[in-house]
Amino acid sequence: MLSLIIAESSLELVPRELQRHNSVTSYCKKMGKRPSEVLLDNSWHFAAMKGMKNEIKRGRPDIVHFCLLEACTIPLYEEDEIDVYVHTIDDKVISVGSGVRLPKSYHRFAGIIEKLFIEKIIKSEDKKLFEIKDMTFSELIDKIQPERVLGLSSEGKQSSYGEVAKLCDEDTCLVIGGFPKGDFSDSTKKRIGSLYSVEQRPLEAHVVVARILYECEKTIFM
Amino acid sequence: MLSLIIAESSLELVPRELQRHNSVTSYCKKMGKRPSEVLLDNSWHFAAMKGMKNEIKRGRPDIVHFCLLEACTIPLYEEDEIDVYVHTIDDKVISVGSGVRLPKSYHRFAGIIEKLFIEKIIKSEDKKLFEIKDMTFSELIDKIQPERVLGLSSEGKQSSYGEVAKLCDEDTCLVIGGFPKGDFSDSTKKRIGSLYSVEQRPLEAHVVVARILYECEKTIFM
Repeated sequence: MLSLIIAESSLELVPRELQRHNSVTSYCKKMGKRPSEVLLDNSWHFAAMKGMKNEIKRGRPDIVHFCLLEACTIPLYEEDEIDVYVHTIDDKVISVGSGVRLPKSYHRFAGIIEKLFIEKIIKSEDKKLFEIKDMTFSELIDKIQPERVLGLSSEGKQSSYGEVAKLCDEDTCLVIGGFPKGDFSDSTKKRIGSLYSVEQRPLEAHVVVARILYECEKTIFM
Repeated sequence: MLSLIIAESSLELVPRELQRHNSVTSYCKKMGKRPSEVLLDNSWHFAAMKGMKNEIKRGRPDIVHFCLLEACTIPLYEEDEIDVYVHTIDDKVISVGSGVRLPKSYHRFAGIIEKLFIEKIIKSEDKKLFEIKDMTFSELIDKIQPERVLGLSSEGKQSSYGEVAKLCDEDTCLVIGGFPKGDFSDSTKKRIGSLYSVEQRPLEAHVVVARILYECEKTIFM
């Protein structure tokens, strides 16, 4: 099966050292949540995040929400032709079950993912919706064992969505960065067979997900 | 210029008759907002919305957020090749300025749109970002004066994104429904020249926006 990895995604719980920061505690009071159980979100916790390590790539759960919506509300996913994974910046991997109806509402999405970080698995009537494990990007590739790993990045070789889609078959793993700015880390790049640039300029991750999967769908379904 | 209308969109403030409902007042207390100044949202106000008129098409501001993100984070918009409008279910029209950086975070987006409903215009350094006016769909078409109005709906004539994009030029207005279920109303259909169905099954509005604009971009930029 074709696989998609949203890699090095900007998705994590508020780390321990920030849990007592005012911007975190006041947000948690408002939302009735515990500081150890909420997603780090720079639109709420900006003040707390200032100066933290790798700041530029962290605290953007909305990016993961959009990327997953692009991947999981399309015929390719509904027809069970793609496996979807989120690899996070601190080396956890979320596998998305098949036929999951992802919440469109952000606060519901955040609620589910927060629960997932605590409980490790979310089921509905015995069907696995989401599961999270400690796993590096490299370990995830070893698990999927794809024939080829194709990454999309503005650093890659000039190509187009249509051209990259033609290279994709059921043994292909597509990798797109789930972070706002910057590039894949070296350890991720090491496991990507070929890197392609499909746009003239850097685009939002969700746009890239939508476009490449649409082209793959055309290739696979026609 | 090519225009896009997200029509009959599921976007409005909480109507007066629901402002005292428990699910609205408790939400407002939590968020520190006034019941007359928050967006109707069925993920928070579901209990209040039960049995309201046209319930199925209302209270989904997240759909508008996603559709606008698909339209306003792509080269077509960044190169100023498309005008974007949101027509709402209760006949208001939001025009989106050019070069607007739409908030990805839903709560920021909701905050701006709530402000827009109250203040009617949102500017940044004298540049108009959003403006809202009382206007029917038909009046909006009269204002844009496009050569042709093409609507996308599962009720339309079987076609594809690529085929519809070939019909689009700078005098075309594309219309996509900004609601979760159901079809365009008769008054909207009357002003749509041709209706096309571009998918085998009903898809989320944001997916349709992403795909048709991507195909238009390919036609226009190549």
